[in-house]
Amino acid sequence: MDVSATITQYAKMLENLDRWLEMGIAFAEKKKVAPDVLAQSRLAPDQYELTRQVQSACDAAKYAAAYLSGQTAPSHPDTEKTIAELRARLATCVKYLRSIPATQYAGAAERRVAPAWLGGKWMRGDHYLVQISIPNFYFHVTTAYAILRHNGVELGKLDYVGAMPPLNDA
Amino acid sequence: MDVSATITQYAKMLENLDRWLEMGIAFAEKKKVAPDVLAQSRLAPDQYELTRQVQSACDAAKYAAAYLSGQTAPSHPDTEKTIAELRARLATCVKYLRSIPATQYAGAAERRVAPAWLGGKWMRGDHYLVQISIPNFYFHVTTAYAILRHNGVELGKLDYVGAMPPLNDA
Repeated sequence: MDVSATITQYAKMLENLDRWLEMGIAFAEKKKVAPDVLAQSRLAPDQYELTRQVQSACDAAKYAAAYLSGQTAPSHPDTEKTIAELRARLATCVKYLRSIPATQYAGAAERRVAPAWLGGKWMRGDHYLVQISIPNFYFHVTTAYAILRHNGVELGKLDYVGAMPPLNDA
Repeated sequence: MDVSATITQYAKMLENLDRWLEMGIAFAEKKKVAPDVLAQSRLAPDQYELTRQVQSACDAAKYAAAYLSGQTAPSHPDTEKTIAELRARLATCVKYLRSIPATQYAGAAERRVAPAWLGGKWMRGDHYLVQISIPNFYFHVTTAYAILRHNGVELGKLDYVGAMPPLNDA
């Protein structure tokens, strides 16, 4: 397993999330409600709504790619108000993730990762990826899925997983 | 990043999940409801309830450890009915995950992984880990968290993440 494969997988999950949002729009049209009711939905009153879950999933992916490839993350301000805008944000993030060549992650395991929230301290790149980035990324992706599912959008596990890896005959 | 670090992280997340269940029991006692009301809760009528989310998280972790270390997975039947029983299942699974030495995962990336649901086909170990196991494991862990959160258990993001990796001074 290498870092590049994980970032490629993040891009795939964000593309899956884009399809769930598309299904959310179709569901809202069928129910004759504004699709952006979904954008404001949440599972608990003090939990992030769908909009911030999508923004947070994008940021978790973007910062992992930037920190582990030794780049400064591009700025993607959290200005989205509609599902259409969230889909554009996902496309921007996926394009960034796919722009980084695998070779750029050489030595990522030993890189010093020092996000601002660590207050000047740092952690190893491999610890950051496995213990912080991956749990956090999937937290926001799955919560976005759960918010849509809870509101009645007909998502299933296959929509979550998306395309299968290459299969080989025995 | 290596496979062993991912399996160690799975064990940590299952220990976090155990604490959320403990908080769920305390919450139910305070609310004077049977804790096992939570065990039967779900976010959508055709979604797995908390019990099956916990069982599925355990199985995702167990099968990854077994397939990628070249072992046959131990049998852990889905017989749990109560939160106390789910906590015992988590402990059994964590004990298994922690029993496998890191050296046992040598060559895991190239291993042929052939779960029964692939109907005789196989995928590479690294594809299985990154594209199937990790998304699936975090799906069930996060959905378990979301079900508890939605029911009012006072969980926050720090409970989700758990203990931080080692931090170093700059």
